[in-house]
Amino acid sequence: MPETPDVHYSFLGPAGTFTEAALAQVPEAQGLPWRAVNNVGEAFADVVSGRSVAAMIAIENSVDGGVSATQDALASVPNLRIIGEYLVPVNFVLVARPGTALEDVKIVNAHPVAYAQCRSWLEGTLPKHGHIPSSSNVAAAAALFEPGPADAAVAPPGIEKHHDLVVLARNIGDNPNAVTRFVLVGRTTVIPAPTGADKTSVIVELPEDRAGALLDMLEQFATRGVNLSLIQSRPIGDAMGRYRFVIDADGHIFDERVADALLGLRRFSPKVLFLGSYPRADKQPNVFTSRYNDEVFIEARDWLRGLISGEPGA
Amino acid sequence: MPETPDVHYSFLGPAGTFTEAALAQVPEAQGLPWRAVNNVGEAFADVVSGRSVAAMIAIENSVDGGVSATQDALASVPNLRIIGEYLVPVNFVLVARPGTALEDVKIVNAHPVAYAQCRSWLEGTLPKHGHIPSSSNVAAAAALFEPGPADAAVAPPGIEKHHDLVVLARNIGDNPNAVTRFVLVGRTTVIPAPTGADKTSVIVELPEDRAGALLDMLEQFATRGVNLSLIQSRPIGDAMGRYRFVIDADGHIFDERVADALLGLRRFSPKVLFLGSYPRADKQPNVFTSRYNDEVFIEARDWLRGLISGEPGA
Amino acid sequence: MPETPDVHYSFLGPAGTFTEAALAQVPEAQGLPWRAVNNVGEAFADVVSGRSVAAMIAIENSVDGGVSATQDALASVPNLRIIGEYLVPVNFVLVARPGTALEDVKIVNAHPVAYAQCRSWLEGTLPKHGHIPSSSNVAAAAALFEPGPADAAVAPPGIEKHHDLVVLARNIGDNPNAVTRFVLVGRTTVIPAPTGADKTSVIVELPEDRAGALLDMLEQFATRGVNLSLIQSRPIGDAMGRYRFVIDADGHIFDERVADALLGLRRFSPKVLFLGSYPRADKQPNVFTSRYNDEVFIEARDWLRGLISGEPGA
Amino acid sequence: MPETPDVHYSFLGPAGTFTEAALAQVPEAQGLPWRAVNNVGEAFADVVSGRSVAAMIAIENSVDGGVSATQDALASVPNLRIIGEYLVPVNFVLVARPGTALEDVKIVNAHPVAYAQCRSWLEGTLPKHGHIPSSSNVAAAAALFEPGPADAAVAPPGIEKHHDLVVLARNIGDNPNAVTRFVLVGRTTVIPAPTGADKTSVIVELPEDRAGALLDMLEQFATRGVNLSLIQSRPIGDAMGRYRFVIDADGHIFDERVADALLGLRRFSPKVLFLGSYPRADKQPNVFTSRYNDEVFIEARDWLRGLISGEPGA
Repeated sequence: MPETPDVHYSFLGPAGTFTEAALAQVPEAQGLPWRAVNNVGEAFADVVSGRSVAAMIAIENSVDGGVSATQDALASVPNLRIIGEYLVPVNFVLVARPGTALEDVKIVNAHPVAYAQCRSWLEGTLPKHGHIPSSSNVAAAAALFEPGPADAAVAPPGIEKHHDLVVLARNIGDNPNAVTRFVLVGRTTVIPAPTGADKTSVIVELPEDRAGALLDMLEQFATRGVNLSLIQSRPIGDAMGRYRFVIDADGHIFDERVADALLGLRRFSPKVLFLGSYPRADKQPNVFTSRYNDEVFIEARDWLRGLISGEPGA
Repeated sequence: MPETPDVHYSFLGPAGTFTEAALAQVPEAQGLPWRAVNNVGEAFADVVSGRSVAAMIAIENSVDGGVSATQDALASVPNLRIIGEYLVPVNFVLVARPGTALEDVKIVNAHPVAYAQCRSWLEGTLPKHGHIPSSSNVAAAAALFEPGPADAAVAPPGIEKHHDLVVLARNIGDNPNAVTRFVLVGRTTVIPAPTGADKTSVIVELPEDRAGALLDMLEQFATRGVNLSLIQSRPIGDAMGRYRFVIDADGHIFDERVADALLGLRRFSPKVLFLGSYPRADKQPNVFTSRYNDEVFIEARDWLRGLISGEPGA
Repeated sequence: MPETPDVHYSFLGPAGTFTEAALAQVPEAQGLPWRAVNNVGEAFADVVSGRSVAAMIAIENSVDGGVSATQDALASVPNLRIIGEYLVPVNFVLVARPGTALEDVKIVNAHPVAYAQCRSWLEGTLPKHGHIPSSSNVAAAAALFEPGPADAAVAPPGIEKHHDLVVLARNIGDNPNAVTRFVLVGRTTVIPAPTGADKTSVIVELPEDRAGALLDMLEQFATRGVNLSLIQSRPIGDAMGRYRFVIDADGHIFDERVADALLGLRRFSPKVLFLGSYPRADKQPNVFTSRYNDEVFIEARDWLRGLISGEPGA
Repeated sequence: MPETPDVHYSFLGPAGTFTEAALAQVPEAQGLPWRAVNNVGEAFADVVSGRSVAAMIAIENSVDGGVSATQDALASVPNLRIIGEYLVPVNFVLVARPGTALEDVKIVNAHPVAYAQCRSWLEGTLPKHGHIPSSSNVAAAAALFEPGPADAAVAPPGIEKHHDLVVLARNIGDNPNAVTRFVLVGRTTVIPAPTGADKTSVIVELPEDRAGALLDMLEQFATRGVNLSLIQSRPIGDAMGRYRFVIDADGHIFDERVADALLGLRRFSPKVLFLGSYPRADKQPNVFTSRYNDEVFIEARDWLRGLISGEPGA
């Protein structure tokens, strides 16, 4: 029986995580084998080695912010490309072993990000509770069946279908609109075609520690009418005060204004990492003023070419 | 014996953490009682309620970046002020119960941030190890004496003085220059006098979701020659794509150029939170070109006043 | 009978010029003696010496541009202030001594600016004509009664009421909407009250010959939402490539945003000459976005003052 | 005898003007016939019609500023290109018919620009003199032999070699360093090769009457490190307050940074007129920071091309 190693999709497991829910949104991944991995490094190693076509990873949460581990891994692992973006509403339940009542709960297992998102509810409802951090939302629930002091866990809705657990409370997240943004990361260098509702992601290291360098970088986008939906600083790591920036720009590298901004960015800093152009999860068409239309760029190029080649009347 | 509740200093405990080491740098705190707390919320509650004079909290790590919980708490808890900044070099040891050899280690307790900073060493030395997250660096070591599968822990140097542990390896952090930046937070509204080597911290919400708003904000600093040492985006939390920015600017609110930048910032956005002006930990004098001297601002104001009051020759 | 020397108004004569028409628009000047002068230097000398209250001078023509002599004199004569602005539509007639027919005209007297504005008509109608420059539009006509080769003159409409001349053609200006802008210049330092439809004029010398200095100067206005209706470079005169800029900004020095822009300008360049704030001739109300309202500036100042004085809750 | 109409060079005559001195600096023009013309319109008509290879015209004086007639003609006559730049030091003598003493002088013939440049000397030496404007510096002197009231003329040095005149005073210009800048204008569209010490001239109409449009235009140059040596506003002429800008930028259209700035300019405004790239008269090499080198632009383009074509590792 032949192996088909490169049709796997990797995701941060175990089954039941929000990451799996994100992967379930990918039509191409349906019917193919999925691989649950333990961390983002493992997910990217699967992609780089060819064990998987692509990996789904969380990159930002609307309440907790950017996922540092993902951003730093994207900055350091070469030959990766973001090929898709997905949104998953995030909510939580409090679960326990059968027979446990809410008023009995003293120690709660929770992944630190989940814990942060439920803190108000937990502090209001269980003012004296203690917290034990878990490595994933599903692991928090699963650990209730292992030795340990915890008597409840913060977990994703539906966890009770996979484990013999009762739900003590639903919708315990502090923000009912919380959402996590995931990206599908592959090693392909063929850029998906523009859809008119695209994002382009880059990581840029400021060229030097001078006043105004960040301003100069942002002007590369602003002077081409390119809006940014994310700008996040991350330490380069070699010294306090040195940063790279993770940037999501509206538009596609095949859009003239985006390509021109990328040119300006590359000239500004030799350390620009292009992470990909891909359809936006929210499918909102990119908006920009008409002076940044493709036609305007093409016309200007034709004009310049005419001048340089000595066409009369140019 | 009378209580003196308001001379306590709070810090993220337990004893032995890097936060305690930061508090040990504060001359005013020596000889007074210290209170170990479990999280930043508790630390700030101590300050707001008057139980403590001030609290020491980590705000940024040179490898791992900004401490989100601290930044978000500063944005939401009113009446706090940063009154000092401290740097603590960060390194780690791998410790175990006596009798454990390095080659025996299979499961490692570690606070997630510490784990991230030692990952290269751990993956190189113990390629098959597993990780159990802990709630603090000291708790990771202490948990070795409780039931559980771990046979080693990532912990701060010196932990062996407090616990019956052996050091299996020293300096296991991936970056030998790693440093964590702490701030001392009080409720005082009297601003410390300028020293010539100061920082000013603010949190600014962009006024609207328009292209160039971030650029406009940064120009408030750049047009007054004020350099930024930190700019970090944090989600406001109400919807994906809405951010506030945590900013550290060189200089003191009593410096004319900084005061003028703050005025510009406040006009730009009604949601500006002033976190304080305080001496820099690195004691590096603020550098700026002479066209932004206090005298230049004062002279211009005198000139304008002369014009408005109708002085001849103005 | 007592002299009242300081109630004179000076204007570039002789009677019948457009400058006199501009002065006729000034209510305060009606019924007082007017003094016709020969050039802008004489006009300003009248004002500085106190021989006149104010002088009316042309500063810009919609077809021919800025009047260099006026701009340079404003830059070099101290203690002057623009106190009003006036617009005069500019048109021309071709006049001759009685008995001259249009087809007889060979040589035309004309002030150089007037000649430039009628050139198309003259070249179309009298293709072989010659031109003799005159020192004013009225002098061009008057010279027809002195010895000389000219048989026609370009002159202002109405000239035939003062001289025994016939009009050969009317409306010979190439641009039917041509208009000249005049300013009334006094030595008063009391600034006229804001009307909501004001201009502020300054002359600014760029501080050094570096790339981007002009950009920095313009940002002083742009970052306060102050629109410019005129920006004109004039040589400083000491070397090729060194310029000062004559600027008309929308708004009044008593408007917070204008005052703040002036402060920024003065800090940017020690060579800023304030020429005055005065009502616009076109009476169009100044338009600006609400984020630059006076209230926004005042609120920000109160906020900063609260911070500095240690008010709780600021 | 065959005609060679297109090897003429036109200049603003008559012989003896500074314009002729500028043309004398052009090696290619030596030994060929020169044509003295009466005004800039005639000069450009010679070029457009092919009667002359090129025309020498004054474009700026270090004391008096831009020559409006030249700038406006360049903006309106199509198919012209500046192909060279020349500097001529400008000084003046006061001349009279033999037998006239300085103290006898009452009326002075002078071209208005020359008169402006000698005003201080004239007012100091001949406080009661009158002024009659002339159409050129040479015509001012020549007119002393025609009927008229003048008894002296302001003229270029050397005029006494062409006319029977005596020099009453030398170096009467107020600024001993005064210089006039001339351009040689042809109809060729083949751009002279870059020399490393080049200028590029354009005329740009602002796209709309909005705050900040001028700032946006200047940023097209600043963001590519292109310095400007001239920026001069000229009225478009259709309404007060509408301007075009005459701009001299350092560098050559074949320099990547200049070409990219021109592209940005064209996208910014559809009304950009390229007047030419040509060697600077002062032969000062263009200076710019290395981040705007041609290589940086080429490398960025290669990088972008690699990304778009899907090269691995790009």
